[in-house]
Amino acid sequence: MNAQFWLWLDTIAMLVGGLVILAIGKRRNGHEQAHTIYHGVVPIIAACSYFAMAVDQGSVTLPLGAPDGTGRLFYYARYIDWTFTTPLLLLSLSYTAMHSSLRRGGMVAGLLLADVIMILTALFFGLSEVAWIKWTWFLVSCVAFLAVYYVIWVPLAEQNRAESAEVQSIFRRNASILTVVWLIYPLILAVSPDGLGVISSALGVALIAIVDLIAKVVYGLMSTMSNSKLVDKEEAAPVSRVSQRMAA
Amino acid sequence: MNAQFWLWLDTIAMLVGGLVILAIGKRRNGHEQAHTIYHGVVPIIAACSYFAMAVDQGSVTLPLGAPDGTGRLFYYARYIDWTFTTPLLLLSLSYTAMHSSLRRGGMVAGLLLADVIMILTALFFGLSEVAWIKWTWFLVSCVAFLAVYYVIWVPLAEQNRAESAEVQSIFRRNASILTVVWLIYPLILAVSPDGLGVISSALGVALIAIVDLIAKVVYGLMSTMSNSKLVDKEEAAPVSRVSQRMAA
Amino acid sequence: MNAQFWLWLDTIAMLVGGLVILAIGKRRNGHEQAHTIYHGVVPIIAACSYFAMAVDQGSVTLPLGAPDGTGRLFYYARYIDWTFTTPLLLLSLSYTAMHSSLRRGGMVAGLLLADVIMILTALFFGLSEVAWIKWTWFLVSCVAFLAVYYVIWVPLAEQNRAESAEVQSIFRRNASILTVVWLIYPLILAVSPDGLGVISSALGVALIAIVDLIAKVVYGLMSTMSNSKLVDKEEAAPVSRVSQRMAA
Repeated sequence: MNAQFWLWLDTIAMLVGGLVILAIGKRRNGHEQAHTIYHGVVPIIAACSYFAMAVDQGSVTLPLGAPDGTGRLFYYARYIDWTFTTPLLLLSLSYTAMHSSLRRGGMVAGLLLADVIMILTALFFGLSEVAWIKWTWFLVSCVAFLAVYYVIWVPLAEQNRAESAEVQSIFRRNASILTVVWLIYPLILAVSPDGLGVISSALGVALIAIVDLIAKVVYGLMSTMSNSKLVDKEEAAPVSRVSQRMAA
Repeated sequence: MNAQFWLWLDTIAMLVGGLVILAIGKRRNGHEQAHTIYHGVVPIIAACSYFAMAVDQGSVTLPLGAPDGTGRLFYYARYIDWTFTTPLLLLSLSYTAMHSSLRRGGMVAGLLLADVIMILTALFFGLSEVAWIKWTWFLVSCVAFLAVYYVIWVPLAEQNRAESAEVQSIFRRNASILTVVWLIYPLILAVSPDGLGVISSALGVALIAIVDLIAKVVYGLMSTMSNSKLVDKEEAAPVSRVSQRMAA
Repeated sequence: MNAQFWLWLDTIAMLVGGLVILAIGKRRNGHEQAHTIYHGVVPIIAACSYFAMAVDQGSVTLPLGAPDGTGRLFYYARYIDWTFTTPLLLLSLSYTAMHSSLRRGGMVAGLLLADVIMILTALFFGLSEVAWIKWTWFLVSCVAFLAVYYVIWVPLAEQNRAESAEVQSIFRRNASILTVVWLIYPLILAVSPDGLGVISSALGVALIAIVDLIAKVVYGLMSTMSNSKLVDKEEAAPVSRVSQRMAA
């Protein structure tokens, strides 16, 4: 199965996934509404990016590349996709951690800034042809990625400890999934033709297509359903919700 | 009258329009200040875009195009303009609907995300040369446009029903004007050389220049004046304003 | 000392400066945390931009330029840097002025919009080859700069007068430094090869590198330390802080 197969598969799967999340996600309060919208829009942006790549509008052939001198096909559209979708996923995680409170805006802004630096320096990694420059960008991107991990697991986790046991449980599970799944991206990029060139371009496209579906559709569905269950309980016992907010 | 005439006309008219809105718009409270600033900045951004297009910095000649093989002049600057100005107009409409309350941030974010997807996929429509790809982008952009309509007329209108009769009346009028005026853009783009090529490039530029003036300057002036009258009444009867906010 | 020296110097100095601010900046409350993060991230973004320019990834040779026909080396990476870093510095100044309150969001948005228009029209100034178009963009950028000054010294200063004497003193000092330091940029750009060409490209790079260090690292350290002293006092006398907030 070549690269085209995976690009079209993700075009369809992302579109369907986004529409399913928008259809089954409820909007009983502002928090649930925001959660549903963010997780529904993420795969729809990705579907546009995959369509662009499938019809040869989201890639460019860079002069250097394969040893046989055929050039390297660089898919830049995914970086535009990631510049919008990864901040949305982290924004949703931040709201999950703090139960949609508006406190600590600077910390959330710092998380999104580290994330955007991570994505843009990864784009420069992919665009670079000279090895030491390429791997310096890779290193910078990884350090920004560590900053994203740090904000999630130290200050955001600390804010999360002021919330109810159930909110803490949902946050820890979502943060754990995101931590593991996102770690696969730099590993694939490092061995793909954009990096060491150990695997073929088609295999790189296939692997990222699979991880993208997990990170956007599977994770989005899980996060939406667990958030929905939380709101179910709060609707059943509104008083306890208010007292939780007071304690927070 | 050729394209240059309209590009220069809108450069001047947008600049004057923006300055007039900033000059006559009042800033008696945070809501009125934000309203005046957003509606004043929108035509000023458009003036920069029209100036760039008038001096040949905001367009590119695409290889395919007219049957005589002369290429197609594509004005991309307007999409950069629209990426900034349409979110500002929708943000202003959202604040008008909810009387500048900060509630339902996820819904407003969803409205702006649908809007930016609509503008960027319209850009890809304009840049595309292959017919089925071009019209697929057009379809995607129209679906995103329907999502913008949906958010305005369903969840935003629902939030609006918690406000006073006068706020509801202003929202319905502004939302109606925006709904009708914005609908003209995809119709012009569809028949322009970027689409079916039924009308000339110069006519397309002229029509968009006229609609842009209505959507940014005329609408901006109307919205600013109706908002100003609302604040006049609230200033005259501050108690009733507080009670409205309490009820909301 | 050629341009490369200064580009590498700022790459290192910005990186070290950003890490120092993140290390010594405290995070005892949401305001202090946001302040530290914004001032720490600004030089790190600049370090990425300087690295890109040092390794020839952040510049392009424009066809026209020097009288000997060698073309003009245009460093566009700094405009991407400034598009992100100048809004962060103004956001931090706004929070300093209003003691991190969320009031007057429209005014802050207007400040950031004027700033982004200033940076993007300065980019068009640098990219332009025809004199009258180039200097029209310069004029537009200067008018947007005046709008930035206006918002800082009129409506923002007015909001600041509702705060404590110490907050007012910190705001006035920070706003004064920023007003003077930022004024140097258009002067350098006007005489550099991007403008009149009175000074050499290397001297232009050197001068901007020095001013950038003052505007991002020196100013960032000063602002972070004065904010830290303010929080020290508030921590020592929490009651007076609450009463200040009530009065505000």
